Amino acid sequence: MQIIHAVKEMQFFADAARSAGKRIAFVPTMGYFHDGHLDLMREARRRADRVVVSIYVNPAQFGPQEDLDTYPRDFERDRRLAEGVGVDVIFFPDNSEMYPPDYQTHVDVEGVTRNLCGRSRHGHFRGVTTICAKLFNIVKPHVTVFGKKDFQQLAAIKRMVTDLNMDLEVVGRPTTREADGLAMSSRNVHLSEVERQSALSLSRSLKMAERRFQEGERDAAKVIQDIRTFIEGHPFASVDYIQICDRQTLQDVPEISERAVLAMAVRVGKTRLIDNHVFGETLNLS
Amino acid sequence: MQIIHAVKEMQFFADAARSAGKRIAFVPTMGYFHDGHLDLMREARRRADRVVVSIYVNPAQFGPQEDLDTYPRDFERDRRLAEGVGVDVIFFPDNSEMYPPDYQTHVDVEGVTRNLCGRSRHGHFRGVTTICAKLFNIVKPHVTVFGKKDFQQLAAIKRMVTDLNMDLEVVGRPTTREADGLAMSSRNVHLSEVERQSALSLSRSLKMAERRFQEGERDAAKVIQDIRTFIEGHPFASVDYIQICDRQTLQDVPEISERAVLAMAVRVGKTRLIDNHVFGETLNLS
Repeated sequence: MQIIHAVKEMQFFADAARSAGKRIAFVPTMGYFHDGHLDLMREARRRADRVVVSIYVNPAQFGPQEDLDTYPRDFERDRRLAEGVGVDVIFFPDNSEMYPPDYQTHVDVEGVTRNLCGRSRHGHFRGVTTICAKLFNIVKPHVTVFGKKDFQQLAAIKRMVTDLNMDLEVVGRPTTREADGLAMSSRNVHLSEVERQSALSLSRSLKMAERRFQEGERDAAKVIQDIRTFIEGHPFASVDYIQICDRQTLQDVPEISERAVLAMAVRVGKTRLIDNHVFGETLNLS
Repeated sequence: MQIIHAVKEMQFFADAARSAGKRIAFVPTMGYFHDGHLDLMREARRRADRVVVSIYVNPAQFGPQEDLDTYPRDFERDRRLAEGVGVDVIFFPDNSEMYPPDYQTHVDVEGVTRNLCGRSRHGHFRGVTTICAKLFNIVKPHVTVFGKKDFQQLAAIKRMVTDLNMDLEVVGRPTTREADGLAMSSRNVHLSEVERQSALSLSRSLKMAERRFQEGERDAAKVIQDIRTFIEGHPFASVDYIQICDRQTLQDVPEISERAVLAMAVRVGKTRLIDNHVFGETLNLS
């Protein structure tokens, strides 16, 4: 496995692979890998001849009050894990190359980024789409793999790729969960024992909502209210948002249908967690 | 010469050319070719194995009060002229493919687009950089050629390409002028006989300014004021802006140096014309 730091070197690798007729699959990450990341890498491995993973904690997608400084990092561990699932290249650039002082360009997807996390995390998705546009131009993948846990992020990336005519396939993978249902996240490491228990309220509430839907409930407001009450009954849990949206436009819908997604962000102590569920789809919960 | 309308077909052509080891040069245009366009195409011809020219009157770069509807068009003439200089492909997409109804992504370059034309043409450069990002992803060029008449546009494209790590070379070509000095523009066709005479005040004022610089004048405000008085002494001519800027940042400078560019936009009757000159460079004026 190669570690590449320089943009030009990464582009050279991509050109060489493409000239040799090889398919490139790409998994962009912020590192501190968990099984969710490894699932994306295995999917990439199945879909291409060369697998490139980037590790870059992108400052442009963190707000001034957010956890950029405390975001967990462990490159050596990440390196071993990536090698273990057959990754060919880790692209590991530094800030001075990605965002030099005279940097001034942004890619902004409007519609799908304005609701949900876009309401409270101002500029976050602009940071995500901009860094992904850059990484796609650097890694030149045929296919890129994202997790569905970050449902709105995936929607924004798909929209950007379609709108800007980027010639690559975007694959979404189901959320990887702990045995007790908690969606895997690098941020879970920050949870205390008690918070970890409260954090289960997210995935449990998804299960509750799906059961209500299966029983015939269609009133989005009613389901949201019940979930909010349930989650906020847990210590240290406070809801940022719980919304039910059309899964293409991410606009709120009053009535639940199989095209709807239930999405939520909840603070548990100081840690902000997200989770989501598309009604009618299988929930990998025990 | 091929005419390609569909995005996928254009990408297929580009992939095939690249797989065969061919270099692609690209000239994006809004059509209604003049000698300036043909100069860009000849430069593209010299630099690559395949020359692609796009013709697309991009609605996203026109303001609501601007001349989208009256922008001149003549595809048959353009086709003959492009063929005459050895273009391989005209990419000629329609609006429904470039901007479908659910379109929602924009590429915005901040610093260099905010001054000069960016002050009066709100959203114009965002439209330009967005369409060029799309076209670069569709045509997949190794090199792209732009005219320096649109100095700020060239600066924005260069900035976008650098910032988003697009792996292509951006070449700027000197402004092509009529025998009497008028910078060639598709919009010149709208000028009446009298307006055509007044329009000469732009290029003449560039010459005046360069002479003042050669004589030792360094005060930007003084030169700007003299030029304004000169231009507005012509019938139907009204100045939108005349500014002297750093040619990298496009921010105003108080003192003229060889790193400075004099840029102007002038309405002559209903037609808005632009022109510019980098101090110390040769002016191709009789």
